[in-house]
Amino acid sequence: MFSDINLIKTIDKESYKSSLKNLELKLKELQLVVAEMKIPVIIIFDGWSAAGKGTQMKRLVYPLDPHLFNVYPMAKVTEDMQMRPFLWDYFNKTPLKGRITIFDKGWSRNLVAARQNLWKFNDKEKKNYYKDINAFEKLLTDDGAVIIKLFLHISKQEQQKRIKELIKSPITAWKVNQNDLNNYEESKEEYEIMIEQTSTESAPWNIIESNDKKFATIKIFNIIIDRLQNEINKLMNKKPEKQIEFISTKNNILQSVNPNLILSNQEYKQKLDHYQGMLYDISNRLYHERQGVVIVYEGWDAAGKGGNIKRITEELDPRGYEVVPISAPTKEELDHHYLWRFYKKLPKDGHIAIFDRSWYGRVLVERIEGFSDVNTWSRAYKEINDMEKHWANHGIIFFKFWLHIDDDEQLKRFEARQNDPVKKHKITDEDWRNREKWDLYTQAANDMLELTSTSYAPWTIIESNDKKHARIKTLKIVTEGINKRLK
Amino acid sequence: MFSDINLIKTIDKESYKSSLKNLELKLKELQLVVAEMKIPVIIIFDGWSAAGKGTQMKRLVYPLDPHLFNVYPMAKVTEDMQMRPFLWDYFNKTPLKGRITIFDKGWSRNLVAARQNLWKFNDKEKKNYYKDINAFEKLLTDDGAVIIKLFLHISKQEQQKRIKELIKSPITAWKVNQNDLNNYEESKEEYEIMIEQTSTESAPWNIIESNDKKFATIKIFNIIIDRLQNEINKLMNKKPEKQIEFISTKNNILQSVNPNLILSNQEYKQKLDHYQGMLYDISNRLYHERQGVVIVYEGWDAAGKGGNIKRITEELDPRGYEVVPISAPTKEELDHHYLWRFYKKLPKDGHIAIFDRSWYGRVLVERIEGFSDVNTWSRAYKEINDMEKHWANHGIIFFKFWLHIDDDEQLKRFEARQNDPVKKHKITDEDWRNREKWDLYTQAANDMLELTSTSYAPWTIIESNDKKHARIKTLKIVTEGINKRLK
Repeated sequence: MFSDINLIKTIDKESYKSSLKNLELKLKELQLVVAEMKIPVIIIFDGWSAAGKGTQMKRLVYPLDPHLFNVYPMAKVTEDMQMRPFLWDYFNKTPLKGRITIFDKGWSRNLVAARQNLWKFNDKEKKNYYKDINAFEKLLTDDGAVIIKLFLHISKQEQQKRIKELIKSPITAWKVNQNDLNNYEESKEEYEIMIEQTSTESAPWNIIESNDKKFATIKIFNIIIDRLQNEINKLMNKKPEKQIEFISTKNNILQSVNPNLILSNQEYKQKLDHYQGMLYDISNRLYHERQGVVIVYEGWDAAGKGGNIKRITEELDPRGYEVVPISAPTKEELDHHYLWRFYKKLPKDGHIAIFDRSWYGRVLVERIEGFSDVNTWSRAYKEINDMEKHWANHGIIFFKFWLHIDDDEQLKRFEARQNDPVKKHKITDEDWRNREKWDLYTQAANDMLELTSTSYAPWTIIESNDKKHARIKTLKIVTEGINKRLK
Repeated sequence: MFSDINLIKTIDKESYKSSLKNLELKLKELQLVVAEMKIPVIIIFDGWSAAGKGTQMKRLVYPLDPHLFNVYPMAKVTEDMQMRPFLWDYFNKTPLKGRITIFDKGWSRNLVAARQNLWKFNDKEKKNYYKDINAFEKLLTDDGAVIIKLFLHISKQEQQKRIKELIKSPITAWKVNQNDLNNYEESKEEYEIMIEQTSTESAPWNIIESNDKKFATIKIFNIIIDRLQNEINKLMNKKPEKQIEFISTKNNILQSVNPNLILSNQEYKQKLDHYQGMLYDISNRLYHERQGVVIVYEGWDAAGKGGNIKRITEELDPRGYEVVPISAPTKEELDHHYLWRFYKKLPKDGHIAIFDRSWYGRVLVERIEGFSDVNTWSRAYKEINDMEKHWANHGIIFFKFWLHIDDDEQLKRFEARQNDPVKKHKITDEDWRNREKWDLYTQAANDMLELTSTSYAPWTIIESNDKKHARIKTLKIVTEGINKRLK
């Protein structure tokens, strides 16, 4: 691939100056249109060491309003990053709608870090590296983001010259790694694979011939301007999207569950002690072996999620877990991809994150209440599977619980709450309204259970008419499930 | 201090059990009242290595609703933390109103880390360590937070026994440091000073005799319950706060400024090139020497902040700075101390943060428009000085600019905007309303300039009727100011 590229391309100083001036004006205009139209834009600068990323980024942002873009240096791998799936940090830094995020270093970052032993991939992560990246980019572009990827390419000779120049002074030496003098060939092979594997229709790589920095600048401006102009035109001429028809799985998973399994008081107490004690020991080993755990709670209103969660956390070291209650998104969260806020809550290796409601809101309440359109929520099944896959590849252990009660039991609990002055505030008109949609919610839950139960993140239905049975069942599954995964 | 403490205190198993049960019920209730009354609560667990912090935290949170508290392990010093003033991480993790934050390790953390060479204090930081902590705690308690500080105290003999036990197994060995076997005396002296220096009326230390873990648990519950009950009672019986009378400095700083200094086109171009080139070199050295810079922009509407900021950033490496535009706070921000959101934007060592409007909003727009009461905003002058002092102690270089135009110039610019279809959106009814309060804003700005201009963070008034003069003046001050501070 690189061998086909002519690096001798140059531009004379005069045409550079006049072209650049026009391009700057154009880009300045487009940035305002992008802000106005609320398009999130991601620009990734990748390329050889000493290829001139810093210079090019500087020239690019020169005409831009500094309130409307952010530049993130991603090259350095921190401890925080190593304790999470590798897309965590990138996802966190995706732009608000209408703003531009510029990443200094894209998908070669981890390859380089792995080579320098600054990043450890496990086998699954290595094998799924490009797949995970493609899914990540697709999820963003499907949501309306524009991703522009630039690979700054220079020849070996040019690189050698530049590196030697840079390491002469302590003021610039930090910009490069002396080892880069000896790994052009090795890198070349890696980069070719990376470019090939992550060039997609909606987010292709653009190779920028960068031996001549001026030539590179003009090419970068042209690519970005063309791309933005294109996306703006597309959006302006966009017809109202045709809504697909979602084909329900029409299964009866929940209808076939008997929610009435029960446990005696005595058995409950005994097993509670047993499993909580075990879970405490296991959580210590979990920390020691640096494994992360995600527990997702979904289920009917008043199914007993709070009390169930409490039985999981009760005996744990509080430094090792976090309970994440999920309610309506904030404005900032709405201005990002909907998975953004969950990515932020990803547990560190060795820690447990318990989600009280979760990203499954999109295919439950948002689907039923029409908060998102059918194209959007029907896409979410795959997006969720991809995200969970990526986390699982990193080693995160998943438990997903649907707390199931029947219609009558819910009514009983609602009425009990209504009549209890202390608990009265826990029941709202909305809860009663949701009850009327019981059948719709059942179908949505059934679709969710079928479409997002995977080998790496399976669902378990917890029969919850009897709270004691429900609590012991989740405790047992979590305890035994983690235990199996530890050394 | 420690020598006066009787560590032989114990409690028998039966009274422990029955007391604990009652205390748990009480705490559970209080947690809901705290949530209802929106009181932010901070509990700091500090103490000897192996004093049982983990166990005690676990017992404490046992009766609590996991949605309403967060536990943060603070013991480990990360690279991110080392690149900022030491209160940064604590401030970030202060609770939302109505929630409880539990810190595992408080003010001994940095002392221990410094001893282990994991933390480097400069002389100013060392000298001001306790002063900065006291100011931080005061700022939170003045804002309604409850801070409960617990120091878990054990004897040398007990500590030796426990550490030896813990290091036997790899599952628990990470909890302690083997070196702690040899530094009881040294630590003792440090801890005594720490406790003495940071015990204040509103946030005193409570020493918990912890040789007997059960005794310690009961004491911790009692302290926390008493304290919360007390604060709740105080709030319930609180009379409407008497509003103090703010005594204006009544100075005429702004009135005595001539905003009409001008620069010729030619001179402007020449100096722009000169200072921007210099600033670029200086920013590289800044990065190399790991110095942070904060630039604050305040001033009249239409004074030219945007264009001025642009001239500072234009030639900088975009990886080295961030422009932080400040607008109305979000709900989450309103549910914290008002300085919280600015602390989050503190620049890393080696980086530049440029604030387009800032924390000075409290003593400008909030004062004039009555968004906060006089007690609150008049307290802010000192709070701001304390915060800036803490940042400056860490080595952050401050520039604070008031962009000054006169009444007529502003009118001219407003009208020009109004008549320009592209810029029309930049001018709102609010801008016109603010103009009517010109005199009030002048007095507020004068008070601010006098009360918050300090040796470590001085204000400069930038005469801005002529934009060229204004831009060159800020550029010159920033460039020369940083240069002076570099080696």
